[in-house]
Amino acid sequence: MKTIFIMVKCDLGKAYDVAAEAVENVEHVSEVYSISGKYDLMMKCYLSDEQDIGHFVNEQIQTLPGIKDTFTMITFKAFN
Amino acid sequence: MKTIFIMVKCDLGKAYDVAAEAVENVEHVSEVYSISGKYDLMMKCYLSDEQDIGHFVNEQIQTLPGIKDTFTMITFKAFN
Amino acid sequence: MKTIFIMVKCDLGKAYDVAAEAVENVEHVSEVYSISGKYDLMMKCYLSDEQDIGHFVNEQIQTLPGIKDTFTMITFKAFN
Amino acid sequence: MKTIFIMVKCDLGKAYDVAAEAVENVEHVSEVYSISGKYDLMMKCYLSDEQDIGHFVNEQIQTLPGIKDTFTMITFKAFN
Amino acid sequence: MKTIFIMVKCDLGKAYDVAAEAVENVEHVSEVYSISGKYDLMMKCYLSDEQDIGHFVNEQIQTLPGIKDTFTMITFKAFN
Amino acid sequence: MKTIFIMVKCDLGKAYDVAAEAVENVEHVSEVYSISGKYDLMMKCYLSDEQDIGHFVNEQIQTLPGIKDTFTMITFKAFN
Amino acid sequence: MKTIFIMVKCDLGKAYDVAAEAVENVEHVSEVYSISGKYDLMMKCYLSDEQDIGHFVNEQIQTLPGIKDTFTMITFKAFN
Amino acid sequence: MKTIFIMVKCDLGKAYDVAAEAVENVEHVSEVYSISGKYDLMMKCYLSDEQDIGHFVNEQIQTLPGIKDTFTMITFKAFN
Amino acid sequence: MKTIFIMVKCDLGKAYDVAAEAVENVEHVSEVYSISGKYDLMMKCYLSDEQDIGHFVNEQIQTLPGIKDTFTMITFKAFN
Amino acid sequence: MKTIFIMVKCDLGKAYDVAAEAVENVEHVSEVYSISGKYDLMMKCYLSDEQDIGHFVNEQIQTLPGIKDTFTMITFKAFN
Repeated sequence: MKTIFIMVKCDLGKAYDVAAEAVENVEHVSEVYSISGKYDLMMKCYLSDEQDIGHFVNEQIQTLPGIKDTFTMITFKAFN
Repeated sequence: MKTIFIMVKCDLGKAYDVAAEAVENVEHVSEVYSISGKYDLMMKCYLSDEQDIGHFVNEQIQTLPGIKDTFTMITFKAFN
Repeated sequence: MKTIFIMVKCDLGKAYDVAAEAVENVEHVSEVYSISGKYDLMMKCYLSDEQDIGHFVNEQIQTLPGIKDTFTMITFKAFN
Repeated sequence: MKTIFIMVKCDLGKAYDVAAEAVENVEHVSEVYSISGKYDLMMKCYLSDEQDIGHFVNEQIQTLPGIKDTFTMITFKAFN
Repeated sequence: MKTIFIMVKCDLGKAYDVAAEAVENVEHVSEVYSISGKYDLMMKCYLSDEQDIGHFVNEQIQTLPGIKDTFTMITFKAFN
Repeated sequence: MKTIFIMVKCDLGKAYDVAAEAVENVEHVSEVYSISGKYDLMMKCYLSDEQDIGHFVNEQIQTLPGIKDTFTMITFKAFN
Repeated sequence: MKTIFIMVKCDLGKAYDVAAEAVENVEHVSEVYSISGKYDLMMKCYLSDEQDIGHFVNEQIQTLPGIKDTFTMITFKAFN
Repeated sequence: MKTIFIMVKCDLGKAYDVAAEAVENVEHVSEVYSISGKYDLMMKCYLSDEQDIGHFVNEQIQTLPGIKDTFTMITFKAFN
Repeated sequence: MKTIFIMVKCDLGKAYDVAAEAVENVEHVSEVYSISGKYDLMMKCYLSDEQDIGHFVNEQIQTLPGIKDTFTMITFKAFN
Repeated sequence: MKTIFIMVKCDLGKAYDVAAEAVENVEHVSEVYSISGKYDLMMKCYLSDEQDIGHFVNEQIQTLPGIKDTFTMITFKAFN
């Protein structure tokens, strides 16, 4: 299992539609936060070890209506 | 009660219309300043503790006509 | 009367000392907020119309112990 | 309860010491991830509603040995 | 009397039209320079003490045809 | 005659000493402004057509005590 | 033989089409990676010593459908 | 005689057309290089001492078809 | 097997020592390139699927003498 | 033969010493310009086709006393 974070900039006024859509309909999206700063949302996703992260971001996230830009951060290890 | 600042970039020549509209018609916007630098306006808003900041920025501010981009800063504590 | 905002980056772990010192001992500093993002503090100051903003930032703020960098925003008009 | 993310840049070679120290000894730090990009770590923290985020970042995180810089993101709402 | 500088990015090939228009027809614009770097023009303006800088930039400058972006710098004191 | 602008970042609390020193003792510096934003000062200098701008910035400005960084803008034409 | 890396930003959701197209149909593209961060793809290309890198990037890469921006890095020496 | 460098960003796939056009048809353009990094071209131009650099960049370069953005660097002295 | 790229900024004049050291003595570093732009080196590393990328960057790369900063890019899929 | 440009940031007040030293004592440096903007110097160098650019920048340029940072641009083709 691997954890990734995707910061998302949305069309003006569309962030909450994007968030609801992602959490409801996109498998592997576990939590979506609306956040401070220049991005609107941060999505936390769990992918299985064989899954291709780039394919997931490209096909499942970037194609959601209302998204303008994405920035992907990969985590390597969780300390908890 | 919590205080947030939203820096706003407007369509060229629209900053004062946006400012007037926000102060008159958007609840929780307490003051709007026109400012130096690359943004046109800084909005100071007071939200109740239960209110969702992201929802407010997304639905009440980003949907005002004449806004191009927003940057949200959250305050944690006021010393005064 | 004019209102300015000064965003302040502090030495690590010193932001609350700087904030307390500024609010208590620096005249014209009306509120100090700790904030999200890359700066630690935002200071709101009221200066009289004859006061020199640059002199104030340079002599009263930048000389506080624990400050690393400042960014000054001037407001032109308050809508409220 | 509120959730914040703190991105952390560490002294070279110190990121895993910082991560271990934060998870073990700093209350409210729930997970620490080592991440891709220009920061070394992302810390996810849960604070109670009355807790002051700025005080926590300033006193509990920025004072950990081996930290060089922090960037704080506040979440407003979790969709999950 | 107060002095402000406005750096201006113009539509490609329009900088000299903008400059001529600003100097001829916009009161308070005292000098316009074409400059090196990423902006095309720097405008120096003198406003009376009661004039609202933001209103001037928004209504008099940003509405000139051929302007794409502006960045405003306020001066506090002139040493000369 | 040619006009150049030099934006100057000073050591904390030293901007007004630098400004006074530059105006008094550096030939060709005609005006120095303290300014909003991330730089502390903007210097306007008039050089004769044969003078070497780089030599002037390097030898006359960057060597003033209290200066940390400079950014030079050249003007090509003055409309006035 | 010389090795270059081209970082590529694609239209939303088009990165994998671009990658497949580049690897299959563009000679000299040896590997394409989908990557973390703000770019979508990194392409590694081998060109012969007489080949013009700029011509290759301009004619072979930037003309692929679905590409929005490119950033080219040249390698000088391979240690391996 | 003075030497200036203009870095140029072109429409995708148009850099070599712009380069050829500039070298052939724009007087004062002495060399055009395709370059690594985020810009596509660097143009080296020699202007006579009385020529207005801003006018040249604005009228002769920015109006070439296929140009998206320019960044101008002025040289002060050549050591050679 | 997974592939990562690490861009490295070195102390002035130390890039080739760092490169030689990394290729010779650090397991998993397969190629090191000196590159154009603001970084000095790009390292390509192959790690086994169970290896922790963050631990590797932190313990094996950032501790090499002569390194000043690192930026890590993770690849998800190789098209070739 | 290949042409490269190196933009150089120097210690305050040292740019002209660096320029003179580079032109006099470093083979392959053909011209050095002092320039506007945030860098102090631009060096134009001609290297033979077999020469390693990274080695040259690292050993011959970055080791000159008074240099703080370098940014290297490679040219691919000269139109002239």
